[in-house]
Amino acid sequence: METVGIQEEFIAQIVKEIIRKQQKNDFLSIPVGVSNRHVHVCREDLDILFGTGYELSPWRELSQKGYYAAKETVVVAGPQGALPGVRLLGPLRPATQIELLLSDAKTLGIKIPIRDSGTIARSEGVTIIGPQGIVVNNTGVMAAWRHIHMNTAEALALGLQEGDAVQVKTKGDRALILANVKIRLGENFITELHVDVDEAFAAQLKNGDKAEILINSKGDNHG
Amino acid sequence: METVGIQEEFIAQIVKEIIRKQQKNDFLSIPVGVSNRHVHVCREDLDILFGTGYELSPWRELSQKGYYAAKETVVVAGPQGALPGVRLLGPLRPATQIELLLSDAKTLGIKIPIRDSGTIARSEGVTIIGPQGIVVNNTGVMAAWRHIHMNTAEALALGLQEGDAVQVKTKGDRALILANVKIRLGENFITELHVDVDEAFAAQLKNGDKAEILINSKGDNHG
Repeated sequence: METVGIQEEFIAQIVKEIIRKQQKNDFLSIPVGVSNRHVHVCREDLDILFGTGYELSPWRELSQKGYYAAKETVVVAGPQGALPGVRLLGPLRPATQIELLLSDAKTLGIKIPIRDSGTIARSEGVTIIGPQGIVVNNTGVMAAWRHIHMNTAEALALGLQEGDAVQVKTKGDRALILANVKIRLGENFITELHVDVDEAFAAQLKNGDKAEILINSKGDNHG
Repeated sequence: METVGIQEEFIAQIVKEIIRKQQKNDFLSIPVGVSNRHVHVCREDLDILFGTGYELSPWRELSQKGYYAAKETVVVAGPQGALPGVRLLGPLRPATQIELLLSDAKTLGIKIPIRDSGTIARSEGVTIIGPQGIVVNNTGVMAAWRHIHMNTAEALALGLQEGDAVQVKTKGDRALILANVKIRLGENFITELHVDVDEAFAAQLKNGDKAEILINSKGDNHG
């Protein structure tokens, strides 16, 4: 079972590295990924928006393996206005999800709830406009809760579990500590802090900047 | 000298209140004021933009006594685009200052430095367009450094001085700790945290929300 051996060695390496970092400092340095507004679509909605059986064309790989920004964009409209050129992300998902910025609320004329990505729950509705049709969605509108995509092995070594909230510190003139940053686990994830464009401007962060998980901040999030 | 007596009594009251707060917790709760992009104009520029001898019409009082948002707005333009409806603030100042959001940089096509309000220094230029004329400005463009307007007597009681940097904690789903928040003193100031629209969306703050100065955070700002 050679794959098990490789996996074990991989975990051992990560654990060693983290222990070294923890002993030296009290944080784990991770890269930052900034998300603009975007839409994840389900098969059924893509059929309506772009035509039956349509396949997304990958435009740019995202940092998480297998995920991509598509060439295709849509218009997202609300009762007060519309946002053109909103990028679709692939691959397809079981349910359509429209991830917006809190700063989009005024333009669209809707309230945008802050929710964990993947949550399907009643929301104020938007209309998604594609070249072949339109879809009304009132279950998948959200601003995504701040989160860290974390490799499962790395989380194990840090004593962190799916859904745990930690604090993350940034640097520079607009230095801040983000509280309530949720851990989202994946076996193939590259550990990365995800913030949206509003948060990126507030902290003056750009893609690839480094932030620090405050290792012992679990449970110390001010609500 | 009755005015001196009143002033002393006022200071004593504030000191008492702060000592009470410090003993109970370790923070001072203050209101939040959210600033959108705006322009402070000098006499000379107002003459060019709106006509010689023009006087601003107050539209809405600001929380700091004597300051107001004017009815008058201008267009602020850069090499890539323009922002319409940018509000003028009164009263007039010795030098024109254009306070923008970092999220305006892309629209305008310029770099926006983060500076203390009142700093006059070389910056990339913008064109201010009024109904009677235009002004080019390349010394007063900035995103204002995060700051707290603080009553001088209150600062004295807290051991804080002009230019000191403290940490401020906010609450809610997007709770965060803002570092490097500078103290700006004024004898008639009402103590208030000033953040811009980008920061307000990132922290989900609105005018009148409460934030907490972490009293012992002076000198503990991560850079």
